[in-house]
Amino acid sequence: MVLRRAFVHRLPAAAPDDVSALEAAIADGRIDPAGVVAILGKTEGNGCVNDFTRAFAVRALSDALAGHVGRPAAAAVSLVMSGGTEGGLSPHLLVLERRSAEETGDAPGPALAIGAAHTGDLPAEDLGRRGQVEMVAAGVRAAMADAGLDDPADVHFVQIKCPLLTADRVRAAEARGATTATRDTLKSMGLSRGASALGVAVALGEIDRDAVDDVAIGRDFSLWSGRASTSGGVELLGHEIVVLGTGRGWVGPLSVDHAVMADGIDVEPVRAALRRLGLAADGQLAAAERGRLVALLAKAEAGSTGRLRGLRHTMLDDSDISSTRHARAFVAGALAGLVGHAEIFVSGGAEHQGPDGGGPVAVIVDREGVMG
Amino acid sequence: MVLRRAFVHRLPAAAPDDVSALEAAIADGRIDPAGVVAILGKTEGNGCVNDFTRAFAVRALSDALAGHVGRPAAAAVSLVMSGGTEGGLSPHLLVLERRSAEETGDAPGPALAIGAAHTGDLPAEDLGRRGQVEMVAAGVRAAMADAGLDDPADVHFVQIKCPLLTADRVRAAEARGATTATRDTLKSMGLSRGASALGVAVALGEIDRDAVDDVAIGRDFSLWSGRASTSGGVELLGHEIVVLGTGRGWVGPLSVDHAVMADGIDVEPVRAALRRLGLAADGQLAAAERGRLVALLAKAEAGSTGRLRGLRHTMLDDSDISSTRHARAFVAGALAGLVGHAEIFVSGGAEHQGPDGGGPVAVIVDREGVMG
Amino acid sequence: MVLRRAFVHRLPAAAPDDVSALEAAIADGRIDPAGVVAILGKTEGNGCVNDFTRAFAVRALSDALAGHVGRPAAAAVSLVMSGGTEGGLSPHLLVLERRSAEETGDAPGPALAIGAAHTGDLPAEDLGRRGQVEMVAAGVRAAMADAGLDDPADVHFVQIKCPLLTADRVRAAEARGATTATRDTLKSMGLSRGASALGVAVALGEIDRDAVDDVAIGRDFSLWSGRASTSGGVELLGHEIVVLGTGRGWVGPLSVDHAVMADGIDVEPVRAALRRLGLAADGQLAAAERGRLVALLAKAEAGSTGRLRGLRHTMLDDSDISSTRHARAFVAGALAGLVGHAEIFVSGGAEHQGPDGGGPVAVIVDREGVMG
Amino acid sequence: MVLRRAFVHRLPAAAPDDVSALEAAIADGRIDPAGVVAILGKTEGNGCVNDFTRAFAVRALSDALAGHVGRPAAAAVSLVMSGGTEGGLSPHLLVLERRSAEETGDAPGPALAIGAAHTGDLPAEDLGRRGQVEMVAAGVRAAMADAGLDDPADVHFVQIKCPLLTADRVRAAEARGATTATRDTLKSMGLSRGASALGVAVALGEIDRDAVDDVAIGRDFSLWSGRASTSGGVELLGHEIVVLGTGRGWVGPLSVDHAVMADGIDVEPVRAALRRLGLAADGQLAAAERGRLVALLAKAEAGSTGRLRGLRHTMLDDSDISSTRHARAFVAGALAGLVGHAEIFVSGGAEHQGPDGGGPVAVIVDREGVMG
Repeated sequence: MVLRRAFVHRLPAAAPDDVSALEAAIADGRIDPAGVVAILGKTEGNGCVNDFTRAFAVRALSDALAGHVGRPAAAAVSLVMSGGTEGGLSPHLLVLERRSAEETGDAPGPALAIGAAHTGDLPAEDLGRRGQVEMVAAGVRAAMADAGLDDPADVHFVQIKCPLLTADRVRAAEARGATTATRDTLKSMGLSRGASALGVAVALGEIDRDAVDDVAIGRDFSLWSGRASTSGGVELLGHEIVVLGTGRGWVGPLSVDHAVMADGIDVEPVRAALRRLGLAADGQLAAAERGRLVALLAKAEAGSTGRLRGLRHTMLDDSDISSTRHARAFVAGALAGLVGHAEIFVSGGAEHQGPDGGGPVAVIVDREGVMG
Repeated sequence: MVLRRAFVHRLPAAAPDDVSALEAAIADGRIDPAGVVAILGKTEGNGCVNDFTRAFAVRALSDALAGHVGRPAAAAVSLVMSGGTEGGLSPHLLVLERRSAEETGDAPGPALAIGAAHTGDLPAEDLGRRGQVEMVAAGVRAAMADAGLDDPADVHFVQIKCPLLTADRVRAAEARGATTATRDTLKSMGLSRGASALGVAVALGEIDRDAVDDVAIGRDFSLWSGRASTSGGVELLGHEIVVLGTGRGWVGPLSVDHAVMADGIDVEPVRAALRRLGLAADGQLAAAERGRLVALLAKAEAGSTGRLRGLRHTMLDDSDISSTRHARAFVAGALAGLVGHAEIFVSGGAEHQGPDGGGPVAVIVDREGVMG
Repeated sequence: MVLRRAFVHRLPAAAPDDVSALEAAIADGRIDPAGVVAILGKTEGNGCVNDFTRAFAVRALSDALAGHVGRPAAAAVSLVMSGGTEGGLSPHLLVLERRSAEETGDAPGPALAIGAAHTGDLPAEDLGRRGQVEMVAAGVRAAMADAGLDDPADVHFVQIKCPLLTADRVRAAEARGATTATRDTLKSMGLSRGASALGVAVALGEIDRDAVDDVAIGRDFSLWSGRASTSGGVELLGHEIVVLGTGRGWVGPLSVDHAVMADGIDVEPVRAALRRLGLAADGQLAAAERGRLVALLAKAEAGSTGRLRGLRHTMLDDSDISSTRHARAFVAGALAGLVGHAEIFVSGGAEHQGPDGGGPVAVIVDREGVMG
Repeated sequence: MVLRRAFVHRLPAAAPDDVSALEAAIADGRIDPAGVVAILGKTEGNGCVNDFTRAFAVRALSDALAGHVGRPAAAAVSLVMSGGTEGGLSPHLLVLERRSAEETGDAPGPALAIGAAHTGDLPAEDLGRRGQVEMVAAGVRAAMADAGLDDPADVHFVQIKCPLLTADRVRAAEARGATTATRDTLKSMGLSRGASALGVAVALGEIDRDAVDDVAIGRDFSLWSGRASTSGGVELLGHEIVVLGTGRGWVGPLSVDHAVMADGIDVEPVRAALRRLGLAADGQLAAAERGRLVALLAKAEAGSTGRLRGLRHTMLDDSDISSTRHARAFVAGALAGLVGHAEIFVSGGAEHQGPDGGGPVAVIVDREGVMG
C-alpha cells in the first residue's frame, strides 16, 4: 500500500479574488499545486442569490491554479465557495492537498484521509429525487475508495458540490418528455442540496436507503446526515465529492472527527469531538490548543420553528436580513466562543444536513504540534 | 435600617407592544407595579436610527403602567429599550422591582441592590463634555445612596438613559451664545453615551476625574468603564440612572457580578463571574444552572481595527448590514453558547463602555433556586 | 336626497406616531373628527413582515380619534397603514371625511363620493377562496350604496383592509373539520389580498364572476381589477371597505379618476387621467397644477418576469433589499417625476391589482382651486 | 484634419462578468477592439464599500479585451464600473469607440466627440486638495485637445476615474514628512471625487479657479460642475479622463447634450436637452424616439436636507438601505418615466457634481435613425 499524507492549509483572503496567500504557499513549497484536490472558501458576499463573490473567487483561484498546473488539471480541482462572513467570521481558504508519504517521511497513521470523486451528469429529471440520492451515494462510495476508506464509521465529513436546474435544463428535459421535480430554479438548489445530503446519509448508513422516497426530499427533515455538507453550483452538471475521514493508509499528524449540533448553540458535542482528538477544551480553547485546531467546518440555519430552546427568535421574520445571515453570525459566535477565533467555515443551506435548526460540524486537529 | 428586596422579572415579548406578560405578572401578584423602578427591554427593530420599535414599546409600557399606578408614577419609571434582536436573541423585558423585606420575609443579605436617580436637565452645551461627565458622576453617587451602597466595589452595573441634541436644542444653545460639542444630532448620541459612561467610570473610581477632558470624550477609547451601559433617548433632557450592586441592606436570593470582555468572543471572564456567583459553569450551563441565571446584560461592538484576534472580519465594511447588527448577533452567539439560551440583553453603542471591540457584562443569579 | 361633500386631507407625518397635524386640523376646524370615514397612511417601516410602524401608527391614530369621538366611534374608522417610504416618498396621512352639504354650501355635483362598509367575519376556510371573493363583492356593493353610487363606472378606487390567517385561526378551522387554503400565515396575506381584489373586480364588472375559481386565486394573474387596492391586517376578521367614486349626490370641487399602469414606468395613462380631471399635465405638473392634485394612490410591484420592457432588472434577485422596496422606490420616482412631488401613496402587494408588474392608480383633483 | 467618428455601444450584461455581448459585437465587426477608449458599466452590486461586482466586471472585461488587443493595450482602456442597479435599472455596458471617418464614410459633422487623457500619479498629499483640482483641470484640457475640442461650451460630459488613499499610501506620505487631507480611506474617496469634479468645473469655466481652496473641497457644495461624473478606484494612482462633446472634427449621426437636475425628480431640464437633440419628447419618449436615445448618464443622491421640494423623505435615516441605493432607484424611476426604459446609467457619489440633491445628466442621441 502506498502511504499518503493529507494537508489542510488555512489561508487568509483579503478579498474574494485574493490568491496571494495561495501563491506564496506555492512559491515557498508549502503547497504543491499538483496535489491540490479541493479548495473550500468563505467569501464575503451575502451568501444568497446575488452573491457574486463566490464566482469571483472561483475565477481567481482557477486562474491561479492554471498558472501552475494548466487549465485541465486546474478544472479537476473542486472549488467550493461559501458566501457570507457575518459576525466576526474571517474570509479564508481551506486548501486540501495530498502527497505521497515517501515524500514527507511521516510516521504511520491512521491519519486524516482525503478522497475525491466526480459523478457523471445528473439527468435534470433526477434532480431532487431518488435518482440523485443514489447517484450521490455511489459517488460517496467512490470517493471513499479513492481515500482507501472501507468503513463508513471512518468518514467524518463529505463535501459535495451539486448541480441545479436552470430554465434551459428544465426546457430540455420537458422537450424529451420528462418532468422535473420543480421548475423553480431557486427551489431546485435546495432540492439538490437536500438530495445530495441524503445520498451521503445512505452511503454512510445513517439512514436506510428505503426510507428515502421522492416525497421526503425537501420535506421530511427528520431524515438527515450528520456528516454531509452540500452546496449548489450552476457551472456543473454532475457532482464533485470530497470525503474526509481517518484511514490506515494515511500518515501525518492530522486527524478529523465530527459532531452534530442539535441547535445553533449546541456546542458541547463539538467540545466532545475536540476532546476525542486530544484537546482539553476546558472552557474556550487556550492559545496553545487553538494553534492545533487546523479547521472547523459547520452548517448553520435558523430552524423552522421560530424558537430556540423554547424562546422566540426573530430571524425568520426579519425582512431586512436573510435568516441565513443571522444564523451564520450567531452560530459563528457560539463556535468562535468555543474555539477562540473566527477563521472557521460556517455555511448555510442545511437541508437534510443535521436536524432542523442544527447541523453537522467537522473538526481537523494537528495532534502533534502548534500550527505556525 | 429598613431592609429591602430586589426582584428582576424576565418576561417574553411577542411584539414590541406586547405587555401581556407584564399584565399577567401584575394580575397574579408576582409584580407589584408600585415597586417597579425600571424596565429594560430588547425590541426587535434594527437598533439604528429608524428603529421605531423602541418608542412603540415605551408607549405600550407607559400605558400599561399608567393603568395601574397613574401617569405621574408611570413617568418616573425608567424605560430603557434597546433595539436589535439579531441572531437568536429573544425579545424580552427585564422588570426591576423592589419591595420592603418585611413583606417578603427573606433572610438577611447582602443581596442584589437596586438604586435609582434622575439628574437635572443637562445644558446642551455640556453634552459630550466634562459637564456631562460630572453631572452623571454625581447622579451615579445619588443612585448608589438610594441603594444604600457606599463602596464603588459593590456596584456591578449602571444603566443610564441620557439625552441627545436635536436641531432645536442646538439652536437654542446658540441663541444664548453657547456652542455645542457637535451640531450633528446622530453624533451627539455617541458623545452623550460616551460622556455618560465616563461619568460612571469617574464615580466608580475606574478612571481618574482629571484624566477626562473634552478632547478625550468620543476619541480616547483607552478610557472606559467596565460597569456602564448607556443609551440615548430623545424624550429626556436629563439622565435616568439605575445602579445594580450587592448591598447589606438587601435581602433575598439574587446576586449580581460583572465581567469585562476584551473582545466579542472573550467569554472566560463571564464564566468566571458566573462561578463567583456559585454556578459551576463547566462548559455550557446545564439546564439546572441555566434556570438560576436570572439575567445577563452585555454590550457588543465590532471593534475599530477590523480585526478579531488578528484575523480580518468584514463587519465594518458591510454596507448592507450595520456593524452593530453583526456584532449583536455574533456576541449573542458567544454568550448564548456559554449560558445555554438567548433571552439575554445584548445591546450596542458601547463608546467608553469596555475596551475597543469588547464590553462590560453583568450577570444576575438566583443563588438558591431554579427559576419557575 | 341629502347632498354630501367629501374631503381628503393630506397631512405630513414626522414619525409613525405623529398625529400633530391631525390634531391641529381638528383643533382649527378643518377636520370634523365625527365625519372621518378612513385614514390611509404611508409609514416609514420596510413594508414587510417585521414592519411595526403600521401598528404604531394605528395605535397613535386610534388614541387621537378616541380622544375626540370616544373609543367605539374611533374603532369604526378604517385605518389602513402602508409601510415603506422608499426613494423620496414622504410619510403622510390621507384623512377621508364627509359632511352634509348643507354645512358646506357647495354648488351641486357630481363630485367625489366616499362610501364605506364592513363585512361580517370571514370563515377561515373561505379565505383566499371564492367565498371571500363573494363576500367582498357584496361588501363593495354595500359601500357603493352607502355612497349613493349605482353605476360601477362611477367607482374609481376601492380600498380594502382584509383579514389573514393565524396559526390559531387555522387550528380552530381544523378543529371543526374545515381546511384552509393554506396553513402558511404569510401566504395567507397574499391570498386574502388577491381574493379581495377579485371581489372588487367582480363587483365592478371587470371580470366575470364565473371566471374566478379557487385555483385561479393567487395563480392566474391575468385576472385583475384596475381599481382595487387591498392590504391585510391581523387585527380584523372581516373586511373594511372604502369606495371612492364620482356621484350626483355629492358636491364640492373634488373629483377622482383612475388609470392602470401596464408596468412600473407606464405613466402616460396617469397623465391621461389627470387631463380628464382638468389638468394640462404637459411634462411634469407645474407648481400651480401641482397644488390642485389632492392625492395620488398607486400600487407597485417588481413583475414576475424579471424584465421591464424586455430589459433585465435585478429586483427579484436582490437578497439584501426586498423587491417590494425596490419597486416602491422606482415607481415613486416615475410618478413623482410626473406630478412634481413625492407625498404620494405608493404601496406594494398588488396580487390581482392591475396586470403583472403594473398596477392601478387613482388621482383626486381639486377642480377649482389650489390647495392651501 | 483627419475626421473621426465616435461610437457608443450599449450592451446588456447578464452578470457582472458577462462579456458575451461584447465578444459578439467584436466577432461580427460592430466593435473594433483597437478603437475602444473606455467602457462604462452598471453592475449589480450595492454600489457601496463591499461591492465586488465592479472589480469582477473589470477583471472579465480586461481579460476579454486582452484576448483581442493584448494586455498593454487593454490596460489603456478606461474601465469605469458603477455599482447599483436599484429599482428597474438594467445592468449594461457602454462601450466608447472611435474610428477614422475614412473607414465609415459618414457626412461631415459636427458630431459626438470622444477624447481621453491620463494624468500622472497624484501625490497622496494632494488628494482632496487644490493640487488635485489643478491636475485634473490640466487633464481635462488634454482630453479636450485629444478630442479636438477648443471651446468648453462644446463639452457635455467628463467621466473621471480617480485614485483614493489607502493606509499604505498615507503611511508613505507621512514617512516623507507630508500630511494627507484625511487618514480615513473611505472619506478619501469622497474627497477625490469632489476635487476631480471641481477640476472639471475649473477646466470648463463653470467656476473660477480662485474660488476653490482646500477648505471648500468636500464642504462647500455651492461649488459644482454640471458636466462632471467622477468615481474612485483603488487600482490607479493618477486619473483616467474621458471627455464627451460635440466637435467639427467628428462625423456620424451621434450627438450629445447635457442638463442639470436641481433635485431627484427635476426631469424637465432633461426633456429640454432631448428636444435640443431633435426628439419631440412630449410625455414619455414614444417607441420610435426611444430607439434613437443611445445613452443617458446621470448622477443621483439623496440631498443633505432630508427634504424634497419641502417634503420630508426618509432616505438619510434608513439604516437598512443606504441612501445612495434609495436615490438611484428613485431617480432611475423619474428618468425611466421620461425616456421609457431603464437601461440607463444612474450612479451615485455626486460630491460637487450638480447641486445638493440633484446632479448632471448627459444624453446621447442618434439624430438620424432608430437603433438596431
